[in-house]
Amino acid sequence: MRDFLPQEAQVMKYIEEKARETANLYGYGEIVTPVLESYKLLAAKAGEEIRSRMYAFKDLGGRRVALRPEFTASVARLIATTLRNDPKPLRTFCVGSLYRYDNPQQGRFREFWQSNYELTGSNEPEADAEIIMLTNRLTQAVGLRNCHFKIGHVGVLREILNQERVDDATQNIITQLMDKKQYDQAFELIEKAGASPKCLATLEKIVNVKGENLSEVLKKLEIETETYEKALGATENLQAILALVTESEEKINMTVEAGFARGLEYYTGMIFEVYVPEMDIALGGGGRYDKLIELYGGEPTPAVGVAHGIDRIMLAMQKQKNIPTMKKNTSVIVISIEEKLKGESLKISQMLRDAGIPAEVEVMGRKVSKALEDADRREIDYAIIIGERELKQGALVIKDLRKREQETVKIERAIEKIKSQNARARF
Amino acid sequence: MRDFLPQEAQVMKYIEEKARETANLYGYGEIVTPVLESYKLLAAKAGEEIRSRMYAFKDLGGRRVALRPEFTASVARLIATTLRNDPKPLRTFCVGSLYRYDNPQQGRFREFWQSNYELTGSNEPEADAEIIMLTNRLTQAVGLRNCHFKIGHVGVLREILNQERVDDATQNIITQLMDKKQYDQAFELIEKAGASPKCLATLEKIVNVKGENLSEVLKKLEIETETYEKALGATENLQAILALVTESEEKINMTVEAGFARGLEYYTGMIFEVYVPEMDIALGGGGRYDKLIELYGGEPTPAVGVAHGIDRIMLAMQKQKNIPTMKKNTSVIVISIEEKLKGESLKISQMLRDAGIPAEVEVMGRKVSKALEDADRREIDYAIIIGERELKQGALVIKDLRKREQETVKIERAIEKIKSQNARARF
Repeated sequence: MRDFLPQEAQVMKYIEEKARETANLYGYGEIVTPVLESYKLLAAKAGEEIRSRMYAFKDLGGRRVALRPEFTASVARLIATTLRNDPKPLRTFCVGSLYRYDNPQQGRFREFWQSNYELTGSNEPEADAEIIMLTNRLTQAVGLRNCHFKIGHVGVLREILNQERVDDATQNIITQLMDKKQYDQAFELIEKAGASPKCLATLEKIVNVKGENLSEVLKKLEIETETYEKALGATENLQAILALVTESEEKINMTVEAGFARGLEYYTGMIFEVYVPEMDIALGGGGRYDKLIELYGGEPTPAVGVAHGIDRIMLAMQKQKNIPTMKKNTSVIVISIEEKLKGESLKISQMLRDAGIPAEVEVMGRKVSKALEDADRREIDYAIIIGERELKQGALVIKDLRKREQETVKIERAIEKIKSQNARARF
Repeated sequence: MRDFLPQEAQVMKYIEEKARETANLYGYGEIVTPVLESYKLLAAKAGEEIRSRMYAFKDLGGRRVALRPEFTASVARLIATTLRNDPKPLRTFCVGSLYRYDNPQQGRFREFWQSNYELTGSNEPEADAEIIMLTNRLTQAVGLRNCHFKIGHVGVLREILNQERVDDATQNIITQLMDKKQYDQAFELIEKAGASPKCLATLEKIVNVKGENLSEVLKKLEIETETYEKALGATENLQAILALVTESEEKINMTVEAGFARGLEYYTGMIFEVYVPEMDIALGGGGRYDKLIELYGGEPTPAVGVAHGIDRIMLAMQKQKNIPTMKKNTSVIVISIEEKLKGESLKISQMLRDAGIPAEVEVMGRKVSKALEDADRREIDYAIIIGERELKQGALVIKDLRKREQETVKIERAIEKIKSQNARARF
């Protein structure tokens, strides 16, 4: 786990703010759910890989709890309980920290941050399209370039396996193997599960169906799924979603990949991930999960969502050398020459802050010259020096630390002078 | 643990934003530390009461870890390690969730949020004064009325007990008992620890020294601590701090209370808590802790800090019926009449968002009349209805859902019309 020092924390909060703005523009209301939840709830549909890496323990009341490894289970619980009577569609947004006991590596940490969007109540393709478009807009809002989307549909593989009567647990293992491109093991398992030779031949073709020419790829997929009615339905659903994205004229760089799966078991439809060329790991991903809310005791409710890795977006911004310049307000240090004027320096610093000017007070008991050296080092813009002689006339010394000029002015004039100065940008 | 739904979450984020603004105005840089830390680190100086309520467990690597019950231990660790060579003073700010296995009651939850400010490197009274003033400003910034501060100094009691050779562990128990006004038990323990009759007589007087007339109370305390040199030093330190606050002309309602202690064991100097008349529990509290950074292997470094309970501030705002009106931007729902114009509705919604207008797309496949009813219920300001006939002329229907007027206009004109509309305030 890591600490974020001010420069990094500022970038993190900047991304969080952009995520919140995006939520607002798309009509997603922010909710806050606990970091700690029932283990059972979080584990229910997380998938074996995530489940085995959860921080789970018993609390002092003997309840089995865990740190959330993702947001969707918590949101689904909320929609199945407190919000069960809220009219649909329901658009929710959350942002916060998540926990997985992974081996730390670039872009993968045990404590990580995500922004999360869920659109609940609609099974129309425009809902799926909205989630993809929103993700694209967020990457643009933080200034990322050359993002590309990898898009698939879990229905294609799963409906074929369903029709061949392969059970869900085996399907989970198979799709995970395929996602890791461990095809030999996957096909061995499919054969063992009793699937027909035709099925094997079809799947072998399907895992190779991928490409950026959407209509061509989707056509191929249509042909391969022709004899599997529900898998064909999945293909047509994917076609409808991507047609809407295309018609919306969003410029989104998309690759369809039929053999693609994701770590979480709860997906039932379209799935996707977004990448930048500079990184191997996804910046974000999501998809449709129509059975999850039911699982938590709610009405059957279709839903589609996405989570974006804030740490990963930060890393991508660094790799693309595109960290925005954070604007810093003009800042001031207030120093009193005499010990007995310390109260006065506190008072004047409050006047500055009342005018919206960030002000620090010298608190180290240093000589004026030492305090000014320190202010210089920290790139503070102005120093206000309070001495008895000037104070008797309601005045003080204001020193411009960049121009190395100083003058004696009334207190009000000093505030005006600093306010009129434009905030200079540095980072 | 609780969920925060959009209205509450909005207030929480509002307080967080005010805390961040305050940090900026006082020159505190934001840092982010992990929710999960080493148990040993968090337990070291937390005090028995908090220690026994920590969420502690072994992680998958066998390390004993815990969810942070407060921020200061993490900040002290950071200052003792990564930031050890950073010049002082160092002003840091953090905000986030904390965990204690308390019995839930009004204003006390197992997961709670705090904003936290630490000023490190100064042992001057103006540093203590700054922390008090900053707390006062934050309460003002969120609109709280009639706040009052309870202020004490752990040095007064502890230095008397030190001089009487009462050990630290016993002192911890004694100050906790006194804080809970369990004086009989406290005095029994002091006697058992071998303190002199003079000491007992002095302490009996001191625990009754309290009041709003600062100079009178401090004078009394001066007299009582006369023969305890270091306790007298503590009294003088408190005098200096409160003199500075008074000279700064901040209007702060303060009560000095000599027998006051706080739950955390690491305090060494001035301590304080802030209250509103409507609530029994403190909204925030803090004080000086000059030994903690040393404890974590850093150089001896004086420090003073404060934490504010965001949940409690929220509760106080509710009790004072002073929740600010959250401004909502003018919002729009985009509905296509025909199925085949869904892509068009996605496109137009993006144009609206590009213009900074929050836009939702109808995703339920409902008839226009049903979608409009729903938009009305949710107090959306405008509906944009897309039909083939209008679209052929590059136009659409815009419906003002408040005024119940509609007109057919060009797309650009619709955007202009909505933009020119002032954001109406509702909550």
